[in-house]
Amino acid sequence: MRARDLVEDYPLVRLTDDALAAARLIAEQRRPGVVVVDGEGRPVTVLPGSQVLRFSVPGYVQEDPSLARVYDEQGGADVCLRNLSGRSVKEVLPPEEKRYELPMVSGEATVLECAATMARLRTPLIVVSDDEEIHGVVTASHLLEVILNASEPRA
Amino acid sequence: MRARDLVEDYPLVRLTDDALAAARLIAEQRRPGVVVVDGEGRPVTVLPGSQVLRFSVPGYVQEDPSLARVYDEQGGADVCLRNLSGRSVKEVLPPEEKRYELPMVSGEATVLECAATMARLRTPLIVVSDDEEIHGVVTASHLLEVILNASEPRA
Repeated sequence: MRARDLVEDYPLVRLTDDALAAARLIAEQRRPGVVVVDGEGRPVTVLPGSQVLRFSVPGYVQEDPSLARVYDEQGGADVCLRNLSGRSVKEVLPPEEKRYELPMVSGEATVLECAATMARLRTPLIVVSDDEEIHGVVTASHLLEVILNASEPRA
Repeated sequence: MRARDLVEDYPLVRLTDDALAAARLIAEQRRPGVVVVDGEGRPVTVLPGSQVLRFSVPGYVQEDPSLARVYDEQGGADVCLRNLSGRSVKEVLPPEEKRYELPMVSGEATVLECAATMARLRTPLIVVSDDEEIHGVVTASHLLEVILNASEPRA
């Protein structure tokens, strides 16, 4: 079994997409984040939901979350949406030196190779890609399933 | 709306549980990880699936994932299972100074307070807990949904 046999679809957004649309995708699909691609469809990084929150919650509230209580419910949501609105995905990403290294393997990678890459980078998912083509992502939970099932006694 | 209204169930494991059972829980429920509690049920940390892989994949393969190809499929799975087998969750966790700070809020926390805590700690989920009782977890994607829906024009 190779990486390309294990892939799942995963939502992609472009650097130029609207940040609110990316937030909506994360919310609707209940994903921890989305994969970000450039204009040619090449994977760039991952935009985690926590980074969208980081960009939208006012800095002084992040420093001291108890200050959040100065807002009522609608006021809190409004200030977050105001910070996101009109922004592109690119603007919401952390500065390049702080971005997540995009973990990537080729479609030919074995299960153990995927597991090793994930372990080394401490990431819950890796992108499977050959040349310019993205096959999808493989999650740590899926890899664990494959490894655990391989342990069943063989006939 | 408060944190306790937003919680979802999340799999818990004890420090003394079998590491293979924790791996199976992550695999079957397709979770990025599990919350670890102590003997009194108090939350201690999060055990991510990538950490289970980190513990099970041989160190030299993590250093150079291309070495994974010295194993065939069954051999690769066997070496991982051997490393996990007979271990407790506690043994598989990173050393204490490298563990994930367990992000926690009280059941009374507002949406913005949850978002601020998640943003500050760059985590995709937080545990909601009062005194000794764990109510559940709140995910970043769920919070984004609540914030986005609050933006609908009010009558």
